[in-house]
Amino acid sequence: MERAKALEIVKEQLTDHRYQHTLGVVETALKLAKKYGANEKQAELAAIFHDYAKFRPKEEMKQIIIQERMPEELLFYNSELWHAPVGAYLVENEVGINDHEVLEAIRYHTSGRPQMSLLEKIIYVADYIEPGRQFPGVDEVRQVANKNLNEALLLSIQNSIIFLVKKKRAVFPLTLETYNYFIHIKED
Amino acid sequence: MERAKALEIVKEQLTDHRYQHTLGVVETALKLAKKYGANEKQAELAAIFHDYAKFRPKEEMKQIIIQERMPEELLFYNSELWHAPVGAYLVENEVGINDHEVLEAIRYHTSGRPQMSLLEKIIYVADYIEPGRQFPGVDEVRQVANKNLNEALLLSIQNSIIFLVKKKRAVFPLTLETYNYFIHIKED
Repeated sequence: MERAKALEIVKEQLTDHRYQHTLGVVETALKLAKKYGANEKQAELAAIFHDYAKFRPKEEMKQIIIQERMPEELLFYNSELWHAPVGAYLVENEVGINDHEVLEAIRYHTSGRPQMSLLEKIIYVADYIEPGRQFPGVDEVRQVANKNLNEALLLSIQNSIIFLVKKKRAVFPLTLETYNYFIHIKED
Repeated sequence: MERAKALEIVKEQLTDHRYQHTLGVVETALKLAKKYGANEKQAELAAIFHDYAKFRPKEEMKQIIIQERMPEELLFYNSELWHAPVGAYLVENEVGINDHEVLEAIRYHTSGRPQMSLLEKIIYVADYIEPGRQFPGVDEVRQVANKNLNEALLLSIQNSIIFLVKKKRAVFPLTLETYNYFIHIKED
């Protein structure tokens, strides 16, 4: 799918603010794809569509999670998490994108997972550091992302877990699994 | 079992430093048991024996985990965690203590678990705040423990997770489960 067409489709699904965020993720994902040798077309497509389901009604997302037999555990955690796997489903079934790697990058862009692909890591990190993001620690992750993608990924996950735990907000078990996985491969 | 006899048994298993820590946990657990209406005898016994297996050789602990079909997952995480479930096993089989509630308080004193019993909470928190403990944040937990045991427990778990994540050390999934459980019951 051409970039212009893809952007047109996704723009309809998002607020202006979120669309600007998406453009930031596209730009950052392309830079990272060039730097780390990922397929740029896939990075662009996954970035464009990563938040496709962001503004779907909760009830619709819940139905899709149940009907598509996604991990039921999702339902016990913050609905903020749902747009990622539901997005992968809708981007396949409404938009007609069949590239499995692109869909997986959308599916895991919020939780991460152990053994993430290069493309998945790029979308996760790009979502975290795109130019519109402003929060304590983001500049450090930006700098690290220029040198070592795994370290940037780990640092974003560390920051996210610490942020959530300080605020007494739930941490999705798969995110902890991802963290535990990447501290170990860093140690290798 | 009488306190003096129990202390004599456990003293042989511990370094002087760890024995002093154990005495601190006993004192604190008794205070908390009085305050929150737990059985003092059980609190005393669980506190005395909570670190019984602390200095067992790793290989012995590993064998017990396998042979007793404890969660295999333990073996993928820091061996620091092993002395708790292995301790419960040895306190039953070497010392001859059969009180299930006491054994469970020993088993879960490091990881915690969702739906912890009052006794389990007391041992977990006493281990964290006994007078010999000195680290940032411990005084706050001591103060909270005088008012609300669940909040003190949650705060110790939050501190522990943040401490580990900052240092890129593994977090045992059951600890995260415990955290996710107690933030929710607090919200109820």
